[in-house]
Amino acid sequence: MRSEFKFINNLKAKYGLTRVGDDCAVISKDAKTDLLITSDMLVEDIDFRLEWTSPEFLGHKALAVSLSDIAAMGGRPAWALLSIGLPENLWNSDFLERFYSGWFLLASNYGVELVGGDISRSPDKIVIDSILGGEVGAGRAILRSNAKPGDSIFVSGTLGGASGGLSLLESGSRHSESGSDSCRNLIARQLHPIPKIIQATLLETLGIVTSMIDVSDGLSSDIGHLCQQSAVGAMITIAKVPIDENLIHHFSPDVGLEMALNGGEDFELLFTADHEYTLMLETNGFTHIGRITEEAGGILLVTPESSVLFRPHGYRHF
Amino acid sequence: MRSEFKFINNLKAKYGLTRVGDDCAVISKDAKTDLLITSDMLVEDIDFRLEWTSPEFLGHKALAVSLSDIAAMGGRPAWALLSIGLPENLWNSDFLERFYSGWFLLASNYGVELVGGDISRSPDKIVIDSILGGEVGAGRAILRSNAKPGDSIFVSGTLGGASGGLSLLESGSRHSESGSDSCRNLIARQLHPIPKIIQATLLETLGIVTSMIDVSDGLSSDIGHLCQQSAVGAMITIAKVPIDENLIHHFSPDVGLEMALNGGEDFELLFTADHEYTLMLETNGFTHIGRITEEAGGILLVTPESSVLFRPHGYRHF
Repeated sequence: MRSEFKFINNLKAKYGLTRVGDDCAVISKDAKTDLLITSDMLVEDIDFRLEWTSPEFLGHKALAVSLSDIAAMGGRPAWALLSIGLPENLWNSDFLERFYSGWFLLASNYGVELVGGDISRSPDKIVIDSILGGEVGAGRAILRSNAKPGDSIFVSGTLGGASGGLSLLESGSRHSESGSDSCRNLIARQLHPIPKIIQATLLETLGIVTSMIDVSDGLSSDIGHLCQQSAVGAMITIAKVPIDENLIHHFSPDVGLEMALNGGEDFELLFTADHEYTLMLETNGFTHIGRITEEAGGILLVTPESSVLFRPHGYRHF
Repeated sequence: MRSEFKFINNLKAKYGLTRVGDDCAVISKDAKTDLLITSDMLVEDIDFRLEWTSPEFLGHKALAVSLSDIAAMGGRPAWALLSIGLPENLWNSDFLERFYSGWFLLASNYGVELVGGDISRSPDKIVIDSILGGEVGAGRAILRSNAKPGDSIFVSGTLGGASGGLSLLESGSRHSESGSDSCRNLIARQLHPIPKIIQATLLETLGIVTSMIDVSDGLSSDIGHLCQQSAVGAMITIAKVPIDENLIHHFSPDVGLEMALNGGEDFELLFTADHEYTLMLETNGFTHIGRITEEAGGILLVTPESSVLFRPHGYRHF
C-alpha cells in the first residue's frame, strides 16, 4: 500500500508544489522576516483516546505538536487557529472549557495568540486541527533539505519515552500521582509533550545548523525524511542513541532500544551541523548520534558488530 | 442549549481574544499589507454526504467556503493548507486524487498555492480542514463591526438556492445532466458554490463598504452577527430580498422565502454602505434589502403589513 509520504510526493510533482514537505511552509512576510505555517490534525481513536488522557492534556498536546513543527524550523511561534469537530454529548459537558484551559496554559508560555478557528459538530469522534503561525528571520528557516555529507547528526533530549508511555497506557496504566516516577514520566511524554522551542531558538541563534526535523514519526523514519529531502545518506551509531532512562524500569533493553529507534511523538529535535561544532553542541546538551554520508538514501545503523540498513519503522497513518 | 456563537463569545471574554469573531483573522504583514487567515472544518454526514456529492465537488467546496471568508473581508486569496482525515477504505481508492483535482481546479482560478497540510487516518468519517491565507491593504480589511445607523444593507446575487438544493438532495434528487435546469442549478448551489471574490474585489476597490459578512449560516443569522459586532440594529424589507428564481419550480413561494431568509451556504456577500451609494451599488448588480438602525440587536423584517422581529433561524452546529 502506498504511504502518505509517497502520496504527498506524487501530489508535489503533479501540481508543482514547492513549499510542501517540510515541518512548516515558509512564506515571505517582509524584507526581514519569513512566516512559518503548519497544521496538524488529531483524530480521536487514531491519535488519542479519551480514556487515556484529560481534556487539558489534549488541549496542551494539540498545541505542542504544532509548536514542535515551528521549533523544527528554528522559528518563534506567534498566532494560532483551532478547528474542532465535537460530538454533541461532549458539547454538553465541560470538555471544551477544559480543553481550552490546557491549550491556553501552554500558549501563554510562548506568547501564542488564538486568532481564529472553527467549531463544528461531528457524528461521534473528536477531530482537532491545530494551525500555528510563526516567524523566522528572512531566509533563516532551517529546512530538512540542506544536510551535507560529513555533517554530524544530533538529537536533543532522549528518545523512546513517548512510545514507552503509549505501551504503558495500552497495558492499562494511567497518568496518576500514585504511580511510580518512571511510569508517570513515560506517560507524560506521550500525553503532555514539551516542545523544544528553547533549544530550537538556541540553535537558530548559533546559526550553524544545516538541516532539522522534529522526531514525530520516529528516529528511523525522520532521519529518512531528512536524508531524502537532502539527497544524502546517514550512519547512526546505535550505542550513541540517547534512550529514555525511564524505559529500563518497564521494558527489556531490546524493547527500549526499539522504542528509541522507531517510536514516534518524542518531539525532540533531530538536526545536522558541520562536524567541527560537535564538541560545542555536546556541551550544550545535544547528543551526537552519527554522521551524514554521500550515498543518497543509504541509511545505516552501526552496531558494535556490523552496519545494518536502518529501515523506516516509525509511525505512518497509511 | 448554548450555541457555538455564545461559546465563542465567552471564550473571547475569558482569554481576551480580540481577533476572533470575523470571517478571517487580520494580522499585520508589513507596512502596506495585512494578512487574512481563516479555517473551515467540513465533517462527513454533518456538512456533506458522500452519496450526494463527488470527490471533485467536495474538493471544490472545501476551498470555496474559505475563499468566501477571504472575499467577505475584501481580500485576495494567496495560499492554503489542507488537513484531511480519511478512513482506510477511501485511502485505497481514487478519492483523494479526485478531491485534489477539484480543489486545484478552483485554486488555479484564483492563484491559490497549496503550501502545506496534514493527512491523517480517521476511524470512519472524512474530515477536512481548509485553511486559507490572503492579503488586503493595511487597515483596509472590511470587518463586521463598522456598520453605522443609516447605512443601506446590500446583498450580492440571490439567496435560498443552496438551501433548495439541499432539500432536493434530501428528497432523492441528484446532480446530473439529465435533470431540469432549475434542479441542476439549485443542487450546484449546494454542492459547487462559487465564491464572490470578484464582487468583493470590486467592493474593496470602491472603498465605500462599512461592514461585510458572507451568507454562510443564513441571512437571518448573518445579519444578526453583523449587527451584534457593530452594536446596531437593522430593518430588512422582505419584498426586496432576492430569492433564487429556480426555487419557484420546486417549492411554494412561502417555502422559497423561508429558504432565502434562513437557508445557509449561499456564500453571497452581505454588506453595508452609506445610503448615498445605493443607486451606484444597485447599478453594479447588488440588491438593496434594508438599512441599519440605531437600536442595537433590534432586527426587524418589514412585510407589506407590518414589521416583525427577524429572529436568527440560520444554521448552527449546536
